[in-house]
Amino acid sequence: MSTDTADAVPDLELIQSRIRDVADFPAPGILFKDITPLLNDRHALAATVSALAAPFRDTGVDHVIGLEARGFIFGAPVALELGAGFVPARKAGKLPSRTIGQAYDLEYGTATVEIHADALHPGSRVLIVDDVLATGGTGRAAVELVRRAGGTVVGFSVLMELAALQGREKLPDVEPHCLLSV
Amino acid sequence: MSTDTADAVPDLELIQSRIRDVADFPAPGILFKDITPLLNDRHALAATVSALAAPFRDTGVDHVIGLEARGFIFGAPVALELGAGFVPARKAGKLPSRTIGQAYDLEYGTATVEIHADALHPGSRVLIVDDVLATGGTGRAAVELVRRAGGTVVGFSVLMELAALQGREKLPDVEPHCLLSV
Repeated sequence: MSTDTADAVPDLELIQSRIRDVADFPAPGILFKDITPLLNDRHALAATVSALAAPFRDTGVDHVIGLEARGFIFGAPVALELGAGFVPARKAGKLPSRTIGQAYDLEYGTATVEIHADALHPGSRVLIVDDVLATGGTGRAAVELVRRAGGTVVGFSVLMELAALQGREKLPDVEPHCLLSV
Repeated sequence: MSTDTADAVPDLELIQSRIRDVADFPAPGILFKDITPLLNDRHALAATVSALAAPFRDTGVDHVIGLEARGFIFGAPVALELGAGFVPARKAGKLPSRTIGQAYDLEYGTATVEIHADALHPGSRVLIVDDVLATGGTGRAAVELVRRAGGTVVGFSVLMELAALQGREKLPDVEPHCLLSV
């Protein structure tokens, strides 16, 4: 076993051990994966940020996009770790200047995610960060936003993939980097 | 001029230069202080996080609370820099497990900020982080939440104080650390 592997395995175990199942949230019958115990543990938080950033260290990332709101928590430290700028992707109406938006489907209806129109420059190399890959709707919308702004998606880095929801299938051109599959 | 001073002054100038005024947001007549150009600039982002954390480096902070949503962007990196856990303070109904909440006044009506009931432990030393100190309503609510959870507020660290709104007067027992007054 190499040193790298020996380092990596305990970190993922620590990370996984700090995710808590909460029954019936946000609706009856749903088992919610609560990341707040992970955030609360400084070792698990540091390990998560490091692991989200690791594959993209030497890929010349210019901007990290974090998806509102939990994606902000990981996205900003990953940006700092990679020496990149941070771009918040927000729900419609939250950003003050001129925006570009991309709609995506919810279970009932649609929602829109926005970035400022001047957030990226042509050729920007962009890493998208979020806590969870579920159905892939917001992830897909973020990828489209980056491309419409003239940027290149270098990667999509996520703490946790909810494998049963098959969000990965919406992102075949991105190949999400997910620390855990639950 | 000491080296410390020489280092600090250009950083604050850089930080200030990356805050953009946007007229008439979120309503006509309001001049909004937009921090997204600051986030977008990796040097300004790193300088901001460093300056928010600096006074609290040797104060034994156990937890950093970030106020939803922009407070997450600074709070998580400050927690990492101080070796503390991160606690998201969220709008009502967003946290999945048992919460404690504190109401605060808005211009019309009230809102509530919540943390998980188990987020702090008795005696936790807590730094509260946000982007803006405006009327002080959410800041005051966060201070009360920490105290009700048995914690001690070590400080309140904020990028920008909107001095005309006198939010500082709501926090006489905390003495906010504000990088800029605008």
